[in-house]
Amino acid sequence: MFREKIKVLDCTIRDGGLINNHEFEDKFVRAVYKALAEAGVDYMEIGYKNSKRLFNPKQFGKWKFCDDEDILRVIDGIKSSTKLSVMVDVDRVDVEDVKPKKDSPVDMIRVAAYVKDIDKAIFLVNHFAEKGYETTVNIMAISKALDNELTEALHQLEEESKADVIYIVDSFGSLYQETVEFLIKKAKAIIKSKEIGIHTHNNQQLGFGNTIEAIIHGANYVDATVFGLGRAAGNCPLELILGFLKNPKFDIRPVLDLISKEFIPLREKIEWGYIIPYAITGILDEHPRAAMALRDSDKKENYREFYESLVAEDED
Amino acid sequence: MFREKIKVLDCTIRDGGLINNHEFEDKFVRAVYKALAEAGVDYMEIGYKNSKRLFNPKQFGKWKFCDDEDILRVIDGIKSSTKLSVMVDVDRVDVEDVKPKKDSPVDMIRVAAYVKDIDKAIFLVNHFAEKGYETTVNIMAISKALDNELTEALHQLEEESKADVIYIVDSFGSLYQETVEFLIKKAKAIIKSKEIGIHTHNNQQLGFGNTIEAIIHGANYVDATVFGLGRAAGNCPLELILGFLKNPKFDIRPVLDLISKEFIPLREKIEWGYIIPYAITGILDEHPRAAMALRDSDKKENYREFYESLVAEDED
Repeated sequence: MFREKIKVLDCTIRDGGLINNHEFEDKFVRAVYKALAEAGVDYMEIGYKNSKRLFNPKQFGKWKFCDDEDILRVIDGIKSSTKLSVMVDVDRVDVEDVKPKKDSPVDMIRVAAYVKDIDKAIFLVNHFAEKGYETTVNIMAISKALDNELTEALHQLEEESKADVIYIVDSFGSLYQETVEFLIKKAKAIIKSKEIGIHTHNNQQLGFGNTIEAIIHGANYVDATVFGLGRAAGNCPLELILGFLKNPKFDIRPVLDLISKEFIPLREKIEWGYIIPYAITGILDEHPRAAMALRDSDKKENYREFYESLVAEDED
Repeated sequence: MFREKIKVLDCTIRDGGLINNHEFEDKFVRAVYKALAEAGVDYMEIGYKNSKRLFNPKQFGKWKFCDDEDILRVIDGIKSSTKLSVMVDVDRVDVEDVKPKKDSPVDMIRVAAYVKDIDKAIFLVNHFAEKGYETTVNIMAISKALDNELTEALHQLEEESKADVIYIVDSFGSLYQETVEFLIKKAKAIIKSKEIGIHTHNNQQLGFGNTIEAIIHGANYVDATVFGLGRAAGNCPLELILGFLKNPKFDIRPVLDLISKEFIPLREKIEWGYIIPYAITGILDEHPRAAMALRDSDKKENYREFYESLVAEDED
């Protein structure tokens, strides 16, 4: 697949931070940035921009806040045309913490929101766009969105928001490619003035396949993470996307090196990937939190009991 | 997805045997058979039917030969409607070793062949069909088949063979779903009197996604293995297919139990799954043998060097 408009956004540090409280060391973040730059990846999302009033900086790593001085330190001296992105969640950001683009190392701000919060997301994204940033709205948990509400949200985003890209986010790793096709076609039918993006989770080993599916139907912004690092089952692996996209600007080799040197050792310390309890929450279209709790318990391999406990939950 | 005609064939012991010289213990094979029976899986492929003239039984496990007495012992006393399958390779089977179906515990014989060997495959499959077996021809390494030769092979299979099913086999895990769609549509356009099957490898985490793609376009026989066990990157995971197919005859729970009890311990002893050198051979559309050799060496995590060695190979 070669379509020049396709942009790859690596969110290894941002999504991976959900496993380790955003406690990545500078050396690691710097190694990721350097490899992405050499690989020709378009964007690197380095973390969240969260309010320090709501979250105590003593309890979280620095990539939950992404202060400019932390960013400037880890990118210092690395030659790169990879742009930097941060994510904000509705109701968790102090907009006054975000400087105008001209005074910041950040290029893009992505607003993550559920369909129900789309008005808040539009307020935020327009604010950041006015400050000079590239912007996106990432519609989370889209597998739980009612079709009429999603339709309305997409119309609002098209007509009222200044976002450059609208992302479809398969938060629970529950979508099969038929539904990816349906959602991308639906979004493209309504969103005419912006690009469509795709962010997948890998609970059912469909992160990469669903990303290809979205590309086939016209998504031009694709998220991925190095070696699939990310909360629970993780995400679409960057190395596979780079192998698939034929744009000669991409070079898979720095990413292979990075995995050898940094991610194989990391996997000895933290867990992510294809693990049956995460597959189960994907199959059942549920948030992985129950599976994450199971993996922290002494019943971590009791899959049948876990499955039966989820299907036995009442939802009257 | 609910289409009653879809049949699931588990080839855990057959494809998994390519990792461990077919040395599975009876207890393990029995546990797999019992779980598949309880899960409602249609077929279990238990191994190969290889010539003992060509392969010394002292050097391989019994599932490389699948003697009837071995099969009868491991299934003894287990209530089941799961049918049994064995695979034969062109030029490696002594047809006189195979009894008539009425005297054998085996229900189905699958003939694996490259396009170039399709005449030999037709001879074998017709022989086994005449002995009373259900039969398939599995076209291996289809990513390397020239389109005109594949067209001719499909016409021959339709017109000259008694096979019930013709399988598309992505031996190298190199296919993306666009090509799966192309191949299934092509096969269905020529093969009118038989079913189409799909057998995937998971080098690029596309085993499950490509299987869904084949189902969407009309494949009714799908191969899978428990926890994706199989040579190198392994195969489409059975548990994911059972989660996807909505036919109420399937029950995922016995398979979850089996993974907890047998496959998590097994993974401490043998390696398979998403491992970067296998992803690289998938991306490059190569047999995984070089990657398997790498994993047995002290350079097992030198991904960049491995990648560069493959792309540097001359193919004049």
